[in-house]
Amino acid sequence: MNQDYIIPNEWSIIEEGFEKDRVKSSESIFSLGNGAMGQRANFEELYTGDTFQGSYIAGVYYPDKTKVGWWKNGYPEYFAKVLNAPVWIGINIEINGEQLDLNTCKEVKNFKRELNMKEGLLDRSFVAILPSGLEIEVNVRRFLAADLDELGVIKYDIKPLNGDAKIIYTPYVDAGVKNEDANWEETFWEPITSEIIGEQGFVQARTFKTHFNVVTFMENEIFINNEKQSIAPSAQQKTETKVQFTYEVEVKANEVATIQKFGGYVVSTNHNENELISAAQNVLAQANDLGYEQLLINQKEAWAKTWEMSDIAIDGDTEAQQGIRFNIFQLNQTYSGKDARLNIGPKGFTGEKYGGSTYWDTEAYCLPFYMATKNQEVARNLLTYRYNQLDKAIENAEKLGFKGGAALYPMVTMNGEECHNEWEITFEEIHRNAAISFAIFNYTRFTGDQTYIPEAGLEVLLGIARFWHQRVNWSADKQKFVMLGVTGPNEYENNVNNNFHSNYCAQWCINYALQQIDTVKTNYPQDYERIATKVNINADELAAMKNVADNIYFPYSEEKGVYLQQDGFLDKDLTPVSELDKVERPINQKWSWDRILRSAYIKQADTLQAFYYFEEDFTKEELEKHFDFYEPLTVHESSLSPCVHSIQAATLGRMEQAYTFYLRTSRLDLDDYNKEVHEGLHITSMAGTWMSIVEGFGGMRVKNDTLHFEPRLPEQWKGFSFKINFRNQILKVIVNKGETTFELEGTEPLEVYVFGEKSVVQPSI
Amino acid sequence: MNQDYIIPNEWSIIEEGFEKDRVKSSESIFSLGNGAMGQRANFEELYTGDTFQGSYIAGVYYPDKTKVGWWKNGYPEYFAKVLNAPVWIGINIEINGEQLDLNTCKEVKNFKRELNMKEGLLDRSFVAILPSGLEIEVNVRRFLAADLDELGVIKYDIKPLNGDAKIIYTPYVDAGVKNEDANWEETFWEPITSEIIGEQGFVQARTFKTHFNVVTFMENEIFINNEKQSIAPSAQQKTETKVQFTYEVEVKANEVATIQKFGGYVVSTNHNENELISAAQNVLAQANDLGYEQLLINQKEAWAKTWEMSDIAIDGDTEAQQGIRFNIFQLNQTYSGKDARLNIGPKGFTGEKYGGSTYWDTEAYCLPFYMATKNQEVARNLLTYRYNQLDKAIENAEKLGFKGGAALYPMVTMNGEECHNEWEITFEEIHRNAAISFAIFNYTRFTGDQTYIPEAGLEVLLGIARFWHQRVNWSADKQKFVMLGVTGPNEYENNVNNNFHSNYCAQWCINYALQQIDTVKTNYPQDYERIATKVNINADELAAMKNVADNIYFPYSEEKGVYLQQDGFLDKDLTPVSELDKVERPINQKWSWDRILRSAYIKQADTLQAFYYFEEDFTKEELEKHFDFYEPLTVHESSLSPCVHSIQAATLGRMEQAYTFYLRTSRLDLDDYNKEVHEGLHITSMAGTWMSIVEGFGGMRVKNDTLHFEPRLPEQWKGFSFKINFRNQILKVIVNKGETTFELEGTEPLEVYVFGEKSVVQPSI
Repeated sequence: MNQDYIIPNEWSIIEEGFEKDRVKSSESIFSLGNGAMGQRANFEELYTGDTFQGSYIAGVYYPDKTKVGWWKNGYPEYFAKVLNAPVWIGINIEINGEQLDLNTCKEVKNFKRELNMKEGLLDRSFVAILPSGLEIEVNVRRFLAADLDELGVIKYDIKPLNGDAKIIYTPYVDAGVKNEDANWEETFWEPITSEIIGEQGFVQARTFKTHFNVVTFMENEIFINNEKQSIAPSAQQKTETKVQFTYEVEVKANEVATIQKFGGYVVSTNHNENELISAAQNVLAQANDLGYEQLLINQKEAWAKTWEMSDIAIDGDTEAQQGIRFNIFQLNQTYSGKDARLNIGPKGFTGEKYGGSTYWDTEAYCLPFYMATKNQEVARNLLTYRYNQLDKAIENAEKLGFKGGAALYPMVTMNGEECHNEWEITFEEIHRNAAISFAIFNYTRFTGDQTYIPEAGLEVLLGIARFWHQRVNWSADKQKFVMLGVTGPNEYENNVNNNFHSNYCAQWCINYALQQIDTVKTNYPQDYERIATKVNINADELAAMKNVADNIYFPYSEEKGVYLQQDGFLDKDLTPVSELDKVERPINQKWSWDRILRSAYIKQADTLQAFYYFEEDFTKEELEKHFDFYEPLTVHESSLSPCVHSIQAATLGRMEQAYTFYLRTSRLDLDDYNKEVHEGLHITSMAGTWMSIVEGFGGMRVKNDTLHFEPRLPEQWKGFSFKINFRNQILKVIVNKGETTFELEGTEPLEVYVFGEKSVVQPSI
Repeated sequence: MNQDYIIPNEWSIIEEGFEKDRVKSSESIFSLGNGAMGQRANFEELYTGDTFQGSYIAGVYYPDKTKVGWWKNGYPEYFAKVLNAPVWIGINIEINGEQLDLNTCKEVKNFKRELNMKEGLLDRSFVAILPSGLEIEVNVRRFLAADLDELGVIKYDIKPLNGDAKIIYTPYVDAGVKNEDANWEETFWEPITSEIIGEQGFVQARTFKTHFNVVTFMENEIFINNEKQSIAPSAQQKTETKVQFTYEVEVKANEVATIQKFGGYVVSTNHNENELISAAQNVLAQANDLGYEQLLINQKEAWAKTWEMSDIAIDGDTEAQQGIRFNIFQLNQTYSGKDARLNIGPKGFTGEKYGGSTYWDTEAYCLPFYMATKNQEVARNLLTYRYNQLDKAIENAEKLGFKGGAALYPMVTMNGEECHNEWEITFEEIHRNAAISFAIFNYTRFTGDQTYIPEAGLEVLLGIARFWHQRVNWSADKQKFVMLGVTGPNEYENNVNNNFHSNYCAQWCINYALQQIDTVKTNYPQDYERIATKVNINADELAAMKNVADNIYFPYSEEKGVYLQQDGFLDKDLTPVSELDKVERPINQKWSWDRILRSAYIKQADTLQAFYYFEEDFTKEELEKHFDFYEPLTVHESSLSPCVHSIQAATLGRMEQAYTFYLRTSRLDLDDYNKEVHEGLHITSMAGTWMSIVEGFGGMRVKNDTLHFEPRLPEQWKGFSFKINFRNQILKVIVNKGETTFELEGTEPLEVYVFGEKSVVQPSI
């Protein structure tokens, strides 16, 4: 644990005391989001210390020019960057002629931040002694409206404690922002216009190249001792990129001066580009109609509703409880599922790193969370996102030389185009394609929705199967189909041959596609006709595919009794991680890349990831054998690693190990295990944490349209509970020592199996 | 052949006719150099068309900040760039108020360039019709003094043909230059001072970071009808980075106005940094003392001397003759061997691409040429260059986790530090290390100089052997030492295991080092003591090394009877290149990188490169078998590929194939096979061309201190001849149909073998 200043609390993330070298980390941890926009916990007022300013709008990105050492044919021209958006939160504050700036105050006392996860609020309070000696108490509350998702709200109180204060507020909106990770130090926003209408301010800016048009807006009110003041701005200023107002108030000692700011974004993806300012006026009108107090009530209600369905309660372990709630909170902040154009970026609204919004993380890690805690439509939206990008995936495959409708989904994307440019990832880490087919299977298995595949999914399944079919070649030497030059989920191996995970995925994807073609043909003949015509299904190709699936090669060691991660794996030095000197860890910071590649050390589950996806294809003994062979070689230097291992350890009844992995995944960012939380949070791995509890400790599986559980309680816990939306009925699963109980909200009795034993849960709510 | 505008001529490169889209290509082909400096054939006068301006100073480089998509541990911070130096050739010309600019002239007639390789002169002539209608004839001669290597000379004649002309010459020197390939569009030169002293101009500038201090200087004279004019500049201008003079002359129709410019560079690596301007004055004084005519005579004499030793004459094939002379000329322009700090950059003084000055090309391809056509000291200087960088090679290995004096020489370097940043090359293309040991062996074998190894070479051999020893690991599975994660000379495979070439090199390097340790111990005990103490030679380590050499694994196919390029090579689709559709070629422009990697196609000799190095270890039958297996899979998309294949084809008596490969290597740039000559010339592969004749058609080898020849004449030639400096005697080898004769310049009779038959050549000169 590298950092432990977060105070344990079941429902809140709390920091006490102001330390400048924690500012960037806390800016990540205390981030807010509402699915449509979000931002780091930057201060509203000027802060001249070390900070990473970031505000983000879902789906608004910039295709930055690719930066590579040496260009390779097939690289994308552009790398889609998560785009730092204009500032709407800014409120500069001058008191008696001095700028309020926590970096230059004489002293900052009683500093406290609280991220109230239950209600979706960020509170900050402190007492500052200004250089003049004036002592002021500050309380700030900020939230991003969960139901009015273009609106953000700030209430900023200042109480002078030891003298009177003349306070000048300068709230502003500002499009003159840059990205921290710009490849070429360019700005990404072109200013369009700025306007002041009454006491409302608007700046309109457009992204270069992508032409997302955004109006950032604000309106402010001043209060003294909670009484609204009719103060007009004493000044207003407008530049090409910025609008600001100046409000002057005078308060006596112990009186409270307050500025309330409504702000936010309206975007051309949701509004007519020529009517953005009136759309913004409309948001402000709604906010004004409701008023701050009602907005606050709505916020609490919206979050109560979200928690009602997605909460996991842990009894007897505050740290574990805080960890899982933090993860669930951030997942809900990042993606609401309302908009099929959006997806779940690896850093959500908390940073810029990795770029792009969509990785295979979505299908492999995030889908189960959204599938189980939202309604079915949300999970289907995640599948539809990929369906809508199928044409681009086919283009992407064509660029690499594939034909006839073969589809390769990008490693990283914003709009369906590949945005990543390391050949060993972009061109070779193709197992991502399988995650997309698997998600369709997983969705169908869980929801029982048989319509998605005939309506859309089959085209995706076929495009992906075609890719795998073409990606292998016949080895005259092995008399099998082989797959050369891939990178598996374990990115500490590059360009290997016959990666077990990838070969197994290829076989599975082809077989699943063939099986679904049959099913659709039989059960949905009209859909079949439509699709067969559109994508040219023909028997020869299907037979050739089948031949590949039937004759694909898997590296296997008779001696060890395990499938090998790839050809030649047994040539490596198999010294377990436990024998590595601690000073050598993490190896990705201590070792050169070639040394990492040559080693047997595994970044994250690879062979075991296939065992996770396709658990039913293997016996528990096989799982155990492979777990015992691979886990000791695994360094878990990906945030996506501990969760899969936690689930498999729990499955094998190794509760202590499962619990250790769980803690590492659930408090990865709160405790900053990887020393990188200042760059943002690991959003997608948070869904893995959820899986660790539900699929790991809860042992939940769906088999033959029925829920199965194998609940196992870590010793450290008294109990835990979670809810599942299973086919439109809500099942609450309550696990206590020696006993698992269920509460069902719905109309029909529900059959469940616990450790293989059937019981029927009656609706009770 | 993509381009064939170069007129065949035995001693000159000639272009006739002015075509704007050939300008950049010709700027490369007509480049001048004198070992210390060089430049592209840019025009002296303003040219507003498409051009690539480049002037370069040997050893002066800039460490540009590394540009990578994703940083990997162990990457160098900087990439050493070949640095575009200040302009010394510039002479702007205004005639009757119009700027002379071939891009805007009404017409350009009789345009001719001639690179007179025999005498080291670049001539350019044309008739231009200016926009006003004035017709002028221009003749320009430029050369870089071969013996006064800080001096360049220009003579620029203008004759108005159909009217009188008022000519304003503006000669200048200018340090305000940029690199075409700057990673971050920064300038690399910091201006220090500019000075005008009498009619001499100086600009002093210093490279950022590396602090090379350079004074670029000039002095000009005006002539009318060859008569020197005492005209003072009508104006002079000085900025921070530039000095220029203005000379005005008036001539009548058919009179000739001439400006003569002496210019060049003096550099802080050769002079006291505070006395650079006086050093430049000194160069100008020497030039003035000699005068233009004498400088010209000296130039012709210097080149006559160079050709006397290094020429290869081909009888009956003008294109082949022009090709080999062009290659020999450029090699002599690039590296004179006088200065052990310098080396042979892949583009010499003709472009910026690839950066750095030293690749394994030097040892594997260039050394034999310089060894045979210069005196022994020059070849030894090339070895010393690496000896002087041994400490950096050890540091470089340490960065990658190696210990105890293991040395990894960089892939690309200027000062001994690694300058390249693709992991698959930087960290994995380690066979380069073997080229350096092999060069020591090759030098010793050829020169008979037994002193280099005890004096310096042994430390290098040991550092390299240590690297190989540590780079392998024991495979419990194979019960052999394996080498994982390498890239061989065939860069169309990355991160492979047990590359035959690399494994064989490792074994050879260890065995050779061990053998030389024994020899030095026995024959040079004092040197041995010194070295053993310095680098800690101990018996255990040597024994462990021996164990590795004795038990290293080589992938071999019993079925095919060949060593495999790497593990798993037979899993590939082995369709020969000849069956590839022409539209798919070159694959490095048509295929995505993953497709190239998965294919069996070979960029350049890999297994066969090992057969080239270690020819004596294999029978001719083995060579033939491997040649027949690998050559059909080879696309020769490296400039270094055809020469090795040409030599091996000749060795196997396949003269037609040998000749085809020869033409491709010798006229690679003249005929622009790879469509990239505008970027500069392939200097290092030119040495390979030399080898194709001497080792290929001449069949020259040194065995047991004796020269062996197996001369084979391509059908297209009547004969050819070359000279070899063999142990301080000069042997001329004259190959004609059915007969090989020798002329020996020296004092001792020389034993030679022709096709295994001994004869003794008596000194005749």
